[in-house]
Amino acid sequence: MELSLLKEKVFQANLDLVKHGLVIFTWGNVSAIDREKGLVVIKPSGVAYEDMRVEDMVVLDLNGKKLDGKLKPSSDTATHLELYKAFPEIGGVVHTHSTFATAWSQAGMSIPNIGTTHADYFSREIPCTRDMDEEEVMGEYEKQTGLVIVEAFKDINPVQVPGVLVKNHGPFAWGKSADDAVHNAVVMEQVAKMAYIAFSINPELTMNPLLIQKHFFRKHGPGAYYGQ
Amino acid sequence: MELSLLKEKVFQANLDLVKHGLVIFTWGNVSAIDREKGLVVIKPSGVAYEDMRVEDMVVLDLNGKKLDGKLKPSSDTATHLELYKAFPEIGGVVHTHSTFATAWSQAGMSIPNIGTTHADYFSREIPCTRDMDEEEVMGEYEKQTGLVIVEAFKDINPVQVPGVLVKNHGPFAWGKSADDAVHNAVVMEQVAKMAYIAFSINPELTMNPLLIQKHFFRKHGPGAYYGQ
Amino acid sequence: MELSLLKEKVFQANLDLVKHGLVIFTWGNVSAIDREKGLVVIKPSGVAYEDMRVEDMVVLDLNGKKLDGKLKPSSDTATHLELYKAFPEIGGVVHTHSTFATAWSQAGMSIPNIGTTHADYFSREIPCTRDMDEEEVMGEYEKQTGLVIVEAFKDINPVQVPGVLVKNHGPFAWGKSADDAVHNAVVMEQVAKMAYIAFSINPELTMNPLLIQKHFFRKHGPGAYYGQ
Amino acid sequence: MELSLLKEKVFQANLDLVKHGLVIFTWGNVSAIDREKGLVVIKPSGVAYEDMRVEDMVVLDLNGKKLDGKLKPSSDTATHLELYKAFPEIGGVVHTHSTFATAWSQAGMSIPNIGTTHADYFSREIPCTRDMDEEEVMGEYEKQTGLVIVEAFKDINPVQVPGVLVKNHGPFAWGKSADDAVHNAVVMEQVAKMAYIAFSINPELTMNPLLIQKHFFRKHGPGAYYGQ
Repeated sequence: MELSLLKEKVFQANLDLVKHGLVIFTWGNVSAIDREKGLVVIKPSGVAYEDMRVEDMVVLDLNGKKLDGKLKPSSDTATHLELYKAFPEIGGVVHTHSTFATAWSQAGMSIPNIGTTHADYFSREIPCTRDMDEEEVMGEYEKQTGLVIVEAFKDINPVQVPGVLVKNHGPFAWGKSADDAVHNAVVMEQVAKMAYIAFSINPELTMNPLLIQKHFFRKHGPGAYYGQ
Repeated sequence: MELSLLKEKVFQANLDLVKHGLVIFTWGNVSAIDREKGLVVIKPSGVAYEDMRVEDMVVLDLNGKKLDGKLKPSSDTATHLELYKAFPEIGGVVHTHSTFATAWSQAGMSIPNIGTTHADYFSREIPCTRDMDEEEVMGEYEKQTGLVIVEAFKDINPVQVPGVLVKNHGPFAWGKSADDAVHNAVVMEQVAKMAYIAFSINPELTMNPLLIQKHFFRKHGPGAYYGQ
Repeated sequence: MELSLLKEKVFQANLDLVKHGLVIFTWGNVSAIDREKGLVVIKPSGVAYEDMRVEDMVVLDLNGKKLDGKLKPSSDTATHLELYKAFPEIGGVVHTHSTFATAWSQAGMSIPNIGTTHADYFSREIPCTRDMDEEEVMGEYEKQTGLVIVEAFKDINPVQVPGVLVKNHGPFAWGKSADDAVHNAVVMEQVAKMAYIAFSINPELTMNPLLIQKHFFRKHGPGAYYGQ
Repeated sequence: MELSLLKEKVFQANLDLVKHGLVIFTWGNVSAIDREKGLVVIKPSGVAYEDMRVEDMVVLDLNGKKLDGKLKPSSDTATHLELYKAFPEIGGVVHTHSTFATAWSQAGMSIPNIGTTHADYFSREIPCTRDMDEEEVMGEYEKQTGLVIVEAFKDINPVQVPGVLVKNHGPFAWGKSADDAVHNAVVMEQVAKMAYIAFSINPELTMNPLLIQKHFFRKHGPGAYYGQ
């Protein structure tokens, strides 16, 4: 893919965060990676969405060295880079402070897989990371945020669980592309909202585990047949 | 009714799901049946609402054999067909993952009839189906979903209760036509939201059973006089 | 006021219910009274808001006799008439199934006066009516609904509490005019929403009674000075 | 800054309250101060947002003496003036009855700092004021409201906590300018909403105190580097 096209896609994906109601002000950022060239394109730091232009997108290598763009990259760039390094299958990353997913992050709880809406996209619960310690927070904080996410996926396939809650912070989501990552961020917010309501209705609710298996794999993997 | 008109109506009813805020992405589907010809018209699978055209609607017989249309029918088609076969009075079916009705489905609880908004459309609680077993889920899952709904209506008149919650999944609604089914799906979502709030306010709330009788039958059946 | 002007005002007030998000479909009705002529103007029954025209408004006397209009008056007309008869100071009445006020009605609980938003418009709690008995429900139900509201205001000044919750049903609000009644219906929905959230946050919350006194009377009555 | 420009900014900031969904009807007011000239510009009292014009803004000195403008200043003016007198660093003040912040005020509880969204703007909890006594409420109520806020900030830096909840009333927010105060009012409403949901999910949630330190000071003060 041409770099100019990737910039355009990252630009559009950032605007889609607003369209889907996931962000206010500048609270969110989307990036994408060109794996062949090893280049990451990301939203600039602190630019209002209504003023942002395609040419404001910042281009970096995986070590965070800026290769193109006049503005500073998003302050969360180091977190994005750790995810690209640890999860070679992913092509786009999104961070937001969307209302319900952030509330679960603040609650410090993973979102249990309690319905087919969740199971259509996530093969299990959406994990919440552990508390970060003083060295992690006061040192290279944004990079350590990425590493604590990667640690939470030690035994989880990031392709089958394309999102995470960072404790007391908010959600990150990812996908095959910037667009796919935004899609998963929208689903995560919706799933977070439904689970909040469902547990308010019935704190003792039970999930039929067969449905997780069925819904995830009728939509993903070799035997997929689902399009709704 | 001309088949082309039925296609147009099913197409419009699918778009109305978006207008009423019941679906995001492609999460929903509407169908209608021509009882005389035995033909079912349904939304195609996996087509974004903004790209969908009238001519994309798929025509099937009640056995699921495709008679017209280039695209695959909605993955939930087999569920719709079971409802048409078991409930001869209905002319349209809707499936969504609307937020509050889905949350009740995830909670695994029927929505109690606690107000006249509910009683104007549903003569009793909106039932939640039982857990499906391994054979049902791993076999012809979508067809079995239809059968488990029909089982829940063994002692319930589907004309007087035009909707159901499938456990850990989401709502199905139906009506005289595609349009009427969408109307009932909107009501169900609203009723699900109100009941969630009402029980949060007062878990010990009581319903006056006389109002159910009065409200349902002043609007439905031979003595109806209500139009609001 | 000219009757044609009153029709226009009632028509607009009905459309305002949609604008303020208080109603979906045809779930709501507004009326106004010309006290000198003894004429009530009300929304017709079962007409969709988008199809409704000024000339569809129905004119009745206080006994419910239709004097002008081709359509049937709202099914809730008899309730409106009882309110006009019992509360001579009011000029407009609104009924909706707005989400949060209806949820309190379903919960069967009065909305306590716990903040200045409430106290700016209502001098005390917004009462919830008692259960209606079989004779009331199966007889002249809509008229009896009015009478049960009036009964709840035996010791309450309807000018200082311009709204009520009908148990298991929904809110009625009133005011000096159709427009003022709609304004109070919007306030009531907002107050119902805030009280629901406030009690979820702190079930043991306390109200400073001095604020009720201060806020209501700095805005209403001879010593009023408030305009925000 | 020219006074005409300050009027324009205050006018725009008042309209932004509507745009951000913080107010309905006339429930809100924004002011700004020109510290050099000692002039405060504030919204007029009781004017609907859709009818308001730049020239309706009212100009006062810090003693509340009107210097320019045909209309009465907002009834809450005396509260704004106390904040400007006690907090010399601030340039703009906002008062709203926004839904979730008002609900916390009604609950009589400070909003705990439980996430980075909160910590990006507020270095600690957002305090709720104490109950006002009879002399305060029945005397110069609006001025006393300002003084009870100032009392709550006896040991808090108002620059690091740019907002407060007035018990049983609603939120006030402030900032470097009218615009910045509105920004903080929007953040406060969002933070109030998230905290409400988070505590509903997990009443026993814990905050990592390191994150408060990190997030507030990476964005504010001499070492700031954050722009998201």
